[in-house]
Amino acid sequence: MSSLSSPTMIPLDVLLALPTASEFLAHLGGIYEKSPTFIEQFYTENLCPTTNDASTIQATKARITNIKILFDEMKQYVRRSPSEVQLELLRSHPDLCLKLEQIDATQRDEDEATITEESRQEQGRAGLATLTPDERQNFTEWNEDYKSKFNIPFILAVRNASKYTVLSALEGRLSNVNSSPQEEIAHALFQVDKIAYMRLLEKVTYSQNQEGHGGFLTCHVLDTANGVPAAGMRIELYKYDNTDTKQMVKSFVTNSDGRLPSGPALKGAEFTVGQYQWIFYVGDYFARFSSSRICGTPFLDVVRLDFGLDDPTDHYHVPLLCSPWSYSTYRGS
Amino acid sequence: MSSLSSPTMIPLDVLLALPTASEFLAHLGGIYEKSPTFIEQFYTENLCPTTNDASTIQATKARITNIKILFDEMKQYVRRSPSEVQLELLRSHPDLCLKLEQIDATQRDEDEATITEESRQEQGRAGLATLTPDERQNFTEWNEDYKSKFNIPFILAVRNASKYTVLSALEGRLSNVNSSPQEEIAHALFQVDKIAYMRLLEKVTYSQNQEGHGGFLTCHVLDTANGVPAAGMRIELYKYDNTDTKQMVKSFVTNSDGRLPSGPALKGAEFTVGQYQWIFYVGDYFARFSSSRICGTPFLDVVRLDFGLDDPTDHYHVPLLCSPWSYSTYRGS
Amino acid sequence: MSSLSSPTMIPLDVLLALPTASEFLAHLGGIYEKSPTFIEQFYTENLCPTTNDASTIQATKARITNIKILFDEMKQYVRRSPSEVQLELLRSHPDLCLKLEQIDATQRDEDEATITEESRQEQGRAGLATLTPDERQNFTEWNEDYKSKFNIPFILAVRNASKYTVLSALEGRLSNVNSSPQEEIAHALFQVDKIAYMRLLEKVTYSQNQEGHGGFLTCHVLDTANGVPAAGMRIELYKYDNTDTKQMVKSFVTNSDGRLPSGPALKGAEFTVGQYQWIFYVGDYFARFSSSRICGTPFLDVVRLDFGLDDPTDHYHVPLLCSPWSYSTYRGS
Amino acid sequence: MSSLSSPTMIPLDVLLALPTASEFLAHLGGIYEKSPTFIEQFYTENLCPTTNDASTIQATKARITNIKILFDEMKQYVRRSPSEVQLELLRSHPDLCLKLEQIDATQRDEDEATITEESRQEQGRAGLATLTPDERQNFTEWNEDYKSKFNIPFILAVRNASKYTVLSALEGRLSNVNSSPQEEIAHALFQVDKIAYMRLLEKVTYSQNQEGHGGFLTCHVLDTANGVPAAGMRIELYKYDNTDTKQMVKSFVTNSDGRLPSGPALKGAEFTVGQYQWIFYVGDYFARFSSSRICGTPFLDVVRLDFGLDDPTDHYHVPLLCSPWSYSTYRGS
Repeated sequence: MSSLSSPTMIPLDVLLALPTASEFLAHLGGIYEKSPTFIEQFYTENLCPTTNDASTIQATKARITNIKILFDEMKQYVRRSPSEVQLELLRSHPDLCLKLEQIDATQRDEDEATITEESRQEQGRAGLATLTPDERQNFTEWNEDYKSKFNIPFILAVRNASKYTVLSALEGRLSNVNSSPQEEIAHALFQVDKIAYMRLLEKVTYSQNQEGHGGFLTCHVLDTANGVPAAGMRIELYKYDNTDTKQMVKSFVTNSDGRLPSGPALKGAEFTVGQYQWIFYVGDYFARFSSSRICGTPFLDVVRLDFGLDDPTDHYHVPLLCSPWSYSTYRGS
Repeated sequence: MSSLSSPTMIPLDVLLALPTASEFLAHLGGIYEKSPTFIEQFYTENLCPTTNDASTIQATKARITNIKILFDEMKQYVRRSPSEVQLELLRSHPDLCLKLEQIDATQRDEDEATITEESRQEQGRAGLATLTPDERQNFTEWNEDYKSKFNIPFILAVRNASKYTVLSALEGRLSNVNSSPQEEIAHALFQVDKIAYMRLLEKVTYSQNQEGHGGFLTCHVLDTANGVPAAGMRIELYKYDNTDTKQMVKSFVTNSDGRLPSGPALKGAEFTVGQYQWIFYVGDYFARFSSSRICGTPFLDVVRLDFGLDDPTDHYHVPLLCSPWSYSTYRGS
Repeated sequence: MSSLSSPTMIPLDVLLALPTASEFLAHLGGIYEKSPTFIEQFYTENLCPTTNDASTIQATKARITNIKILFDEMKQYVRRSPSEVQLELLRSHPDLCLKLEQIDATQRDEDEATITEESRQEQGRAGLATLTPDERQNFTEWNEDYKSKFNIPFILAVRNASKYTVLSALEGRLSNVNSSPQEEIAHALFQVDKIAYMRLLEKVTYSQNQEGHGGFLTCHVLDTANGVPAAGMRIELYKYDNTDTKQMVKSFVTNSDGRLPSGPALKGAEFTVGQYQWIFYVGDYFARFSSSRICGTPFLDVVRLDFGLDDPTDHYHVPLLCSPWSYSTYRGS
Repeated sequence: MSSLSSPTMIPLDVLLALPTASEFLAHLGGIYEKSPTFIEQFYTENLCPTTNDASTIQATKARITNIKILFDEMKQYVRRSPSEVQLELLRSHPDLCLKLEQIDATQRDEDEATITEESRQEQGRAGLATLTPDERQNFTEWNEDYKSKFNIPFILAVRNASKYTVLSALEGRLSNVNSSPQEEIAHALFQVDKIAYMRLLEKVTYSQNQEGHGGFLTCHVLDTANGVPAAGMRIELYKYDNTDTKQMVKSFVTNSDGRLPSGPALKGAEFTVGQYQWIFYVGDYFARFSSSRICGTPFLDVVRLDFGLDDPTDHYHVPLLCSPWSYSTYRGS
């Protein structure tokens, strides 16, 4: 059974009790790209026993009961920082183009790599190295245009982003006549938050071996043609791996309320970040009703619904509303 | 380039001009399962030169300008028939259980087969022969229950239906305390209509080699987060074959109105009945907008939308309404 | 505080213990229009102490713990009856045209009325008497056509139906080339069920004064632009009276999960059949987010959602999914 | 028939040909609140014959063929301006609290008013003067908090906004821990754009008396229970006046494609900015189908859909997708 910790991870309570900034830095130094000073300051202002009185530190530790709260504190700390500090955080990010060259370089020779290991890994998964010469030229040019227009590097924290995502994002921001530096800076800070959170989850764990971060996945199927829960519908849950192939995780038959019969589809250690797919056997369900007129090649038969689980601490409710001729889904609660 | 005719097909105008019932029967005899008398009567009442005056026949031929109209005339003829005739049409269908045995039998010895070739082919595709012993027992039992309860055989004209579809349909009709013989008969007639139409399309063609039956497929993508057409979204269209693998047919990038840039995705000879899939690159699209906050593992990234094209004479509009957190589709117009 | 009983109503347990068919008939005789024999037979076969042994009667009484179960038993009894009996039930209904004349007649002279009091009341609310001469002619003609085509009177149990509903229904059934007597009979039986249930609810009550039949109304608002519950949204609930004016029943502000803060909006004696309206202050909600770009005349501001509560024993979940540019609702669970 | 001009409006071509900044200012001085210098600079850089060569001016005039293009040019001019200039534009706006006091003041004595006439009119319609003492206190306090937090006044260009909208917006921005000055500034610029556009439309017209700005309203109804256009559905269009009462504008019956039978519902001079309501007679439509099981108090009967038309130059497509148990709408195209 998978657990949340690996040998290089530090338990949250141990982290919060570290007595010096250098030790804190040794663990979380890479959270904000090439910005150890910022992490040091966060430690000094909030957790350092020489600059805070004991009761303040105690209160802070008592408040930070999980990794998401630690992240929230850091995020607020970024928000309260002067705009020069914020811009510095953004500008410490290598531009995606440089990363790209480096990924190629590391494929030749690890020693040449000058981007951080964290950054390389995130980007390495992105498959950017497969750019065609033309795409690389577009990419380089748009990247420069972005920096010129908004005075910050282009930052995108999409895990496993394809080159299409990155190129689409760059082109979209540049071609939008309404986009403003203010919005791009706000958005880049958002991306930096996300990177910090993703990195925190890989560096910090819990003292007591915990089964997951508390997130879970639920489902519900409504039959909008008849105004009732879709009872007795077969559903399968698949997970994609990084190479875009999928494995079935579980299968279900909905209960009389149109829900999964035994609680969440995923919870605890099973609930892991990634790309998933529901398969709903909608055609089989509607064949039960003579009024549905299911025949020939049905308009809807197998409904495949791809979705991503992003935050391991959250509840994801991913329902289906369907008739034989229409369906919709949304992130519910 | 695929055309609509094969050597065994008869052109519509030639069909309508056939001078005797036996010739008409030779071509369309199998349209209604084991019911040649019915076809004969249809011919006699509508097209036979000895029982209709010339001007009536002329009017009928002038009205029936395509295969769907021929089908509609036959459907109306069924509807106007006395209920005994209708029940006879239904009861001429082999029960699905017998078909099943026969499919197995034909795999051993063609001569033993007593079901019609048309019926065998439709069913053969259904993969019913892969029933487990338990499933076969359920199937046989439910089939008998159905006949006892409703006094007609269970008829299901789903092309390539899986055993799950058939079992779900049978179980649903039997367990529904509100189902009535009236409804089941009405529904069985609907299935018989569908079978007749599918068979007509394989037996009748046009004199002038025609590129398709006139149906076409269109698409439209709306961005419901921003209230605008989703311009510049990549879309791919795939077609499934009978073994559930798919081939890309075409790819598109939406225009400024969120539509395909060069008219229908499929039309003419390309528009063929079957299972298709749209892939919409929704995540890439929303990455264009800083306000979308696309990061980490996006909730929606690649939207896969499976749909069936059933009637080769119809317009299928299959749009997508999407935000980064929800989407819906429907058969539009 | 409203209760479920009135002096003329009979408690369920008392009803089920009535010793003779004539007493049972005295209470439920009008459930099926002009069909006392049918009610009598239902009593004789299920509840009569001289034709059933004590343990069977005991089991029946033990099963029928509420009015909906009584209704279900009657419905199944109809379903199991021979088709001649079913047709007799349908043909006992006065045609809507006759009702119309009678309603006019009763306005002149009560004595002339020959339709049942139950039927007159249901129809009287329908406002059919306001037909123009032309509409009355259409109505009469279509009614006759319907009877000729399907051999049963046209039955529609829509409470407070407008003349438009009735005319639309009649025209639709007649103009549908695919409609069949089987379907119309099945549907007419469904309407007769509905009438019986509505009449039962007005004739039977409970011994212990009960606050409502157990139904309740809930709500949920999801923000599909941001993928979160819509917290802090103002909602109002109105009820329409028969003259199409409405009164505010309650107002709410959604909690952090987008739900009503104190459970069901209506339950117990408050949950009564009728037409309601939610008002959702969607524009005010989205003005909270700078990313929503609410300005000028917002596309969506006040969302009004009219819905009917029909079955006093059911749960009605009536949610809203909304972005600043789109919304949807459905009967949920 | 209403036209686009009033005596105080200036035709676009005349405006673009004005020979001096002071004349240009006399007409458009109020477009950006208390920022005549900005308007003057726009004129000088783009239209002034002494600072631009003839061919440049000619090209500019040739490009600006309608009022929306003029607005776009101004918006881009704002976007290209240094951030100090942008902040100056924002800070020239009176705070909403001051406006409020002034509106009260003007009700006592016009001479005391110090806010611009444009601003007063927009705000006057907002009904802010009806704040209770408690609300006024909240309002004043939050307004101050907003200015302290983001260093700009709170700007909201919602026409006819209620006090609830303004209070909700203020509270939302202040309570959002993720909101940033960058985003608020970007949003405030967006509001300032909107104000400029609304004022332009009231100050500039066309030489040739034009029937409307080109915008139009269309509709489409899809029946998602049956997968077909909703043909023959009655629809009514209402317009709200400022006192929240409504007048019917037109009524329609959908054609066989589920669309309005004679093109746009509104176009030309009829297409005016404001709050509208569609009424869809969904219950009557579904009563046409026996499979819909419409009876009792239908869940959906009359669907009321309120929407705002904001930009007189745009196409608004406002469709309905409906089953007897669900519906959705969106701004389409």
